[in-house]
Amino acid sequence: MTDPTVEDLLERVREGDVRLHELDDHVDAGTAATVRRRLVADRSGADLDVVGEYAFDAAAADPNIDNMIGGVQIPLGVAGPVAVDGGAFDGDRFLPMATTEGALVASVNRGCSVIDAAGGATARVTKSGMTRAPVFRVTDVAEAEALVEWVRDNEDRLREAAESTTSHGELLDVTPYVVGNNVYLRFRFDTKDAMGMNMVTIATGKACDVLEAETDAELVALSGNLCSDKKPAAVNAVEGRGRSVTADVEIPREVVEDRLHTTPAAIAEINTRKNHVGSAKAASLGFNAHVANAVAAMFLATGQDAAQVVEGSNAITTAEATADGNLYVSVSIASLEVGTVGGGTKLPTQAAGLDVLGVRGGGDPAGSNADALAEAIAVGALAGELSLLAALGSRHLASAHADLGR
Amino acid sequence: MTDPTVEDLLERVREGDVRLHELDDHVDAGTAATVRRRLVADRSGADLDVVGEYAFDAAAADPNIDNMIGGVQIPLGVAGPVAVDGGAFDGDRFLPMATTEGALVASVNRGCSVIDAAGGATARVTKSGMTRAPVFRVTDVAEAEALVEWVRDNEDRLREAAESTTSHGELLDVTPYVVGNNVYLRFRFDTKDAMGMNMVTIATGKACDVLEAETDAELVALSGNLCSDKKPAAVNAVEGRGRSVTADVEIPREVVEDRLHTTPAAIAEINTRKNHVGSAKAASLGFNAHVANAVAAMFLATGQDAAQVVEGSNAITTAEATADGNLYVSVSIASLEVGTVGGGTKLPTQAAGLDVLGVRGGGDPAGSNADALAEAIAVGALAGELSLLAALGSRHLASAHADLGR
Amino acid sequence: MTDPTVEDLLERVREGDVRLHELDDHVDAGTAATVRRRLVADRSGADLDVVGEYAFDAAAADPNIDNMIGGVQIPLGVAGPVAVDGGAFDGDRFLPMATTEGALVASVNRGCSVIDAAGGATARVTKSGMTRAPVFRVTDVAEAEALVEWVRDNEDRLREAAESTTSHGELLDVTPYVVGNNVYLRFRFDTKDAMGMNMVTIATGKACDVLEAETDAELVALSGNLCSDKKPAAVNAVEGRGRSVTADVEIPREVVEDRLHTTPAAIAEINTRKNHVGSAKAASLGFNAHVANAVAAMFLATGQDAAQVVEGSNAITTAEATADGNLYVSVSIASLEVGTVGGGTKLPTQAAGLDVLGVRGGGDPAGSNADALAEAIAVGALAGELSLLAALGSRHLASAHADLGR
Amino acid sequence: MTDPTVEDLLERVREGDVRLHELDDHVDAGTAATVRRRLVADRSGADLDVVGEYAFDAAAADPNIDNMIGGVQIPLGVAGPVAVDGGAFDGDRFLPMATTEGALVASVNRGCSVIDAAGGATARVTKSGMTRAPVFRVTDVAEAEALVEWVRDNEDRLREAAESTTSHGELLDVTPYVVGNNVYLRFRFDTKDAMGMNMVTIATGKACDVLEAETDAELVALSGNLCSDKKPAAVNAVEGRGRSVTADVEIPREVVEDRLHTTPAAIAEINTRKNHVGSAKAASLGFNAHVANAVAAMFLATGQDAAQVVEGSNAITTAEATADGNLYVSVSIASLEVGTVGGGTKLPTQAAGLDVLGVRGGGDPAGSNADALAEAIAVGALAGELSLLAALGSRHLASAHADLGR
Repeated sequence: MTDPTVEDLLERVREGDVRLHELDDHVDAGTAATVRRRLVADRSGADLDVVGEYAFDAAAADPNIDNMIGGVQIPLGVAGPVAVDGGAFDGDRFLPMATTEGALVASVNRGCSVIDAAGGATARVTKSGMTRAPVFRVTDVAEAEALVEWVRDNEDRLREAAESTTSHGELLDVTPYVVGNNVYLRFRFDTKDAMGMNMVTIATGKACDVLEAETDAELVALSGNLCSDKKPAAVNAVEGRGRSVTADVEIPREVVEDRLHTTPAAIAEINTRKNHVGSAKAASLGFNAHVANAVAAMFLATGQDAAQVVEGSNAITTAEATADGNLYVSVSIASLEVGTVGGGTKLPTQAAGLDVLGVRGGGDPAGSNADALAEAIAVGALAGELSLLAALGSRHLASAHADLGR
Repeated sequence: MTDPTVEDLLERVREGDVRLHELDDHVDAGTAATVRRRLVADRSGADLDVVGEYAFDAAAADPNIDNMIGGVQIPLGVAGPVAVDGGAFDGDRFLPMATTEGALVASVNRGCSVIDAAGGATARVTKSGMTRAPVFRVTDVAEAEALVEWVRDNEDRLREAAESTTSHGELLDVTPYVVGNNVYLRFRFDTKDAMGMNMVTIATGKACDVLEAETDAELVALSGNLCSDKKPAAVNAVEGRGRSVTADVEIPREVVEDRLHTTPAAIAEINTRKNHVGSAKAASLGFNAHVANAVAAMFLATGQDAAQVVEGSNAITTAEATADGNLYVSVSIASLEVGTVGGGTKLPTQAAGLDVLGVRGGGDPAGSNADALAEAIAVGALAGELSLLAALGSRHLASAHADLGR
Repeated sequence: MTDPTVEDLLERVREGDVRLHELDDHVDAGTAATVRRRLVADRSGADLDVVGEYAFDAAAADPNIDNMIGGVQIPLGVAGPVAVDGGAFDGDRFLPMATTEGALVASVNRGCSVIDAAGGATARVTKSGMTRAPVFRVTDVAEAEALVEWVRDNEDRLREAAESTTSHGELLDVTPYVVGNNVYLRFRFDTKDAMGMNMVTIATGKACDVLEAETDAELVALSGNLCSDKKPAAVNAVEGRGRSVTADVEIPREVVEDRLHTTPAAIAEINTRKNHVGSAKAASLGFNAHVANAVAAMFLATGQDAAQVVEGSNAITTAEATADGNLYVSVSIASLEVGTVGGGTKLPTQAAGLDVLGVRGGGDPAGSNADALAEAIAVGALAGELSLLAALGSRHLASAHADLGR
Repeated sequence: MTDPTVEDLLERVREGDVRLHELDDHVDAGTAATVRRRLVADRSGADLDVVGEYAFDAAAADPNIDNMIGGVQIPLGVAGPVAVDGGAFDGDRFLPMATTEGALVASVNRGCSVIDAAGGATARVTKSGMTRAPVFRVTDVAEAEALVEWVRDNEDRLREAAESTTSHGELLDVTPYVVGNNVYLRFRFDTKDAMGMNMVTIATGKACDVLEAETDAELVALSGNLCSDKKPAAVNAVEGRGRSVTADVEIPREVVEDRLHTTPAAIAEINTRKNHVGSAKAASLGFNAHVANAVAAMFLATGQDAAQVVEGSNAITTAEATADGNLYVSVSIASLEVGTVGGGTKLPTQAAGLDVLGVRGGGDPAGSNADALAEAIAVGALAGELSLLAALGSRHLASAHADLGR
């Protein structure tokens, strides 16, 4: 390619007249990306042509990327379809999954098939709210106590300020935490179909302005890490963040035996020794086999924030043989942060992923699409857990049979 | 598109003659993907054409995906270049980052620029080893004690068995953990330039065969969750998994003031109140601001496993004003699981990402490319932390000035 | 001693006519203890005479012990007096401490002396409430969701039932947590001056009766471990249990230098490297040096439950050099479970310990004595932290001086 | 009492001529305690006579207490006897327990009785070692890496230095952890029958002298909190500290039904929902019902450090219905720090407690008495868990029967 504009700009960047991130001021987004790609290729000796073969509109991607040089492509597969009785998600749907880990989609697919044979999974969002927790500095604990009291007395004013910045978000509550001369206020919002980090950051910032104007507390950081965003933190595992969502299924004993070649008791035992006792000994916040796999793959397929896979791994899997001899399995994800509007959801392949699930854009009622997405992901995670536990169980049974044969 | 093969297969799938995942037995991978994409589009009502515009070879992606319908595309940007003095990574390099979160690349870029102004960052891998921890069932704790002793006495035999399955991997050590009648053995391997999960799973399985043949212990699961893979677990945060890597930098006071518009003391204070005390109160394993952001973006750009962003968030950021009045900042990631061979690293856009860093394929010596990748990611994380702390600090300073002006 | 009653009963126990725990049905508590002590001495070959030299009334100790054979004696010392400006605790008081660890009281004493020189400590209870969290079994997550809704709609009925069992306790709130087909309800009560475990267990039990009668949920256990009693759990470290209490002090730079032979900056640095970063790397819930020491010693001296030292160790210590060059130090204990009525507080030596602090029995207003006890313990912990950090700091300074002298 | 010496000293203390902690320089320890007790009584208005009725020798208690005013008395009971097949503890023994919590000894006693009916418990110490982890400051991570290498190359020299300070202790290993410019070295020692904190602190200090003399690293604190002493930390729960000990028992189904009025399956289910899933949701390090109760009561009865109950609560309880229909129950305590020499073990009532167990003083071989004490405590904890789970189970069964009767 010898586009004169590109060559010219390349020269100007090399000579230091234009900086990489300033290219968008001179040309359209696509050309800017091309210039950068050329420059990076030259500097690194890498062949980056394939990075330039992206199928989205560079200008439209502007809210999602800076210093763009192209696109990364990740294979996309589907599991299912799987029947779900959800609070917001319903019917038989394929689950889109983008991953580079072979066997993952196949594993979830096998789980979906068994869930379907059992009549489908149930799923519910049991708690909801996106949080932001600024930290304030006060003089001492006496002032901290006074600030906590002020917040309790003025929650309405904080709400008014916060909600003035958003047409959708609603402040649910504010929980104070005191550590020495630090006061953390965990603001929790209903952000409807948006994942909501930006929305709650702006809204909380406005509430902080009120608080700083009216008290002697000084804002240190709009996020004081009690939110807690993109960190593995117990506050999220216990109290939830984004959606707390559970999917479960009861599978008839015959299905377990015929399709999974194991027994409810064997699966329950493996779940206990691995997911409960093993995770306990590991001092883990994740009492599951590989929930993060389904979360990551469905996040990538639907335009969610990949860094929030961290919180999505705060999940507990349970398995038990019921009184009727069947198998009950559940997955509860404490802090699944998802949205169907904003962020990466507008990119074309990601929008397509949401369309596969039928949850793109704002839901009716508001929030129902994000709820449905959370339920779909929980079902994907359930299918993955079931499949992996069953694989262990059938190996176990085979080994038990071999033992008997000795 | 009215490719007769596609139409015919679509019909056969609809009639139940062929199942989705069997399509690869009938046609080439690309056509199979097309059939599936058509079917999923029909069932969901979604327009999936853009998903079909992928730039990788469908057949070549076979080890990475099942039930493929196409590709997801994520914008790719670059930060830097940034100078690094690493144990394996050296020189000035651009950092490739794939993300949909606007401002992220710009933030890391600003951090890189300041690091450069300070003469570059230092980075080192301080511990290394990929783990797999099977769980065995024994009769009681007396047998558990005997098993632990057997393992200690027979580590050489376990090593021999394990290493017979791999030309690269080396068993470093086996650590036993006893909980009631469960014995967990954490096998730790040097997997060189591979992230190594598959390698260590196969190798550990072979060692388990020996153990089961020679003792009364029964293998319950090849992963007993003390590994711990894709879960937020203290065992990784404390003992490490994959690479334990640190990047740090000392920034002259003038640079902090001129470029970041704040002071070393202000940044240190914010780091303490937010990343240390806030995370402590959140009962977190992540004492940082947003390390997962850089980890996730660089993972996606280089073909790493997105679900392992979970462990990559086990990171501690420190910041201090030095005796000389400068700013010292560090990021230590305890369990960064990376590879430059295998997995998603062969996909074309991801291979290009590795080439940007100059770390694609096996390193010389073996393992040095994966070490270098870990160091590059740590530097990206360091840049991100620095940038965010500085932004908070300059706001802080502005506010402090306003206070003085009152 | 040849008391015929004792000899006769000993014989009957040896012959199996009377069981050890039935002795109280035949003789007074003191004689029963003597018989048991004799029997245990005979069986074990131990000389237990000193165990019989207890100074409390055996009959009066009946609510505190079963199968009593005597008493254990632990040395009691005092630290202070120390000036405290508390929400409930005020004035100059000695702190009673029972311990067998030499140097502990001396260390706290030194801290008290420095706090006094700085004008005294500030202390506040910032959150309060004793919890009990039963676990219920439901059919699936759909029923779990319905139960959570039922609880929200019927909190008044639950409160009425719970409060019908107690003249003092007040139900503050009920927080539901769903994991698969398990629903945990964390009931939180104001228990005034009682530590309150028994009170809340009875009250919660009554509320559970209502819930079981009105819904299909089945109570599995009155404590489902989300309470969480006598376990090291993040739910307590984050949300608190019993009293969340902070003590802090600002110490003039001269006092730090003259009395502690170190500097505010040195103490802040040590606190960061040890209590913050070290504890972070240890994946700890305790970001302090030795708060449990003061908690344990004051618990034993005042009749608290020694097993609840576990929760009392959920503490964060902060230290910073202020803008004025002084030293600010704080200790925040998240879950300090204390009472001044009931439990071991009626035993004579323990009642004396409470009297030393002036907090025995019910406070006026109700709850103020237990608040004051919490504040006193926090001040003791603060003194202990300060003393230990200062010892490290002066060694540090000495070493620094030695370095300069080289 | 009008002892002229006491009155005279009281006057001198009141006038400020003598300070409280200097009294031991003027009179014997008992008289000094009397003077202090009088003074504290006068200042607080408390009647402290009963505190003076202690049965130990004040002078002999000098290593255990400072500023002594007397003694605190705690009721002592016994559970058992219970049959144990331990690695070091053997035969039928009473378990001494000092507590003020009514019903605790009775509960453990009931558990012991059922364990006995099942033929006794098995117990083993599966890992052992007392730790101390100093923190060093280095320039940057490059120096940190070099230090870690130096430590690996010079472990023999560190061992020689450390072991020069003790006739009993042996350095087992040194594990390095790097966080930015901090290097933590976790020294682990075999301390035989001593709990060993003092021993390892002195020994580690000597090793640090060598390290500081030979490298540029600067010791910041002899404890960098990765030890981790008296804090609830995952490093202990995962890797152990002091003794890692397990006790377990298999109870015939008939015994469960006849004596506990419940079934193995019911107990297993309760254990899962409460101790595993409930604790998982609480983000706990304690997956048990009330292990800390037995630990605390036996610690107080045998002269252990009450603040170390914190680590003793890092315990996992498992329960399962075996293939034969019996009940298997186990308790594994990860970090039980106990000794039978030194500390509070020499005080007369505590020595008597050790004698009841037959484990006072140095064992033969060295370390076996402390091992035996750990096993005894684990059995006490097992009995307590069993009893509490059974109580829940029988209530559960009763409720189930009531359901059927409706």
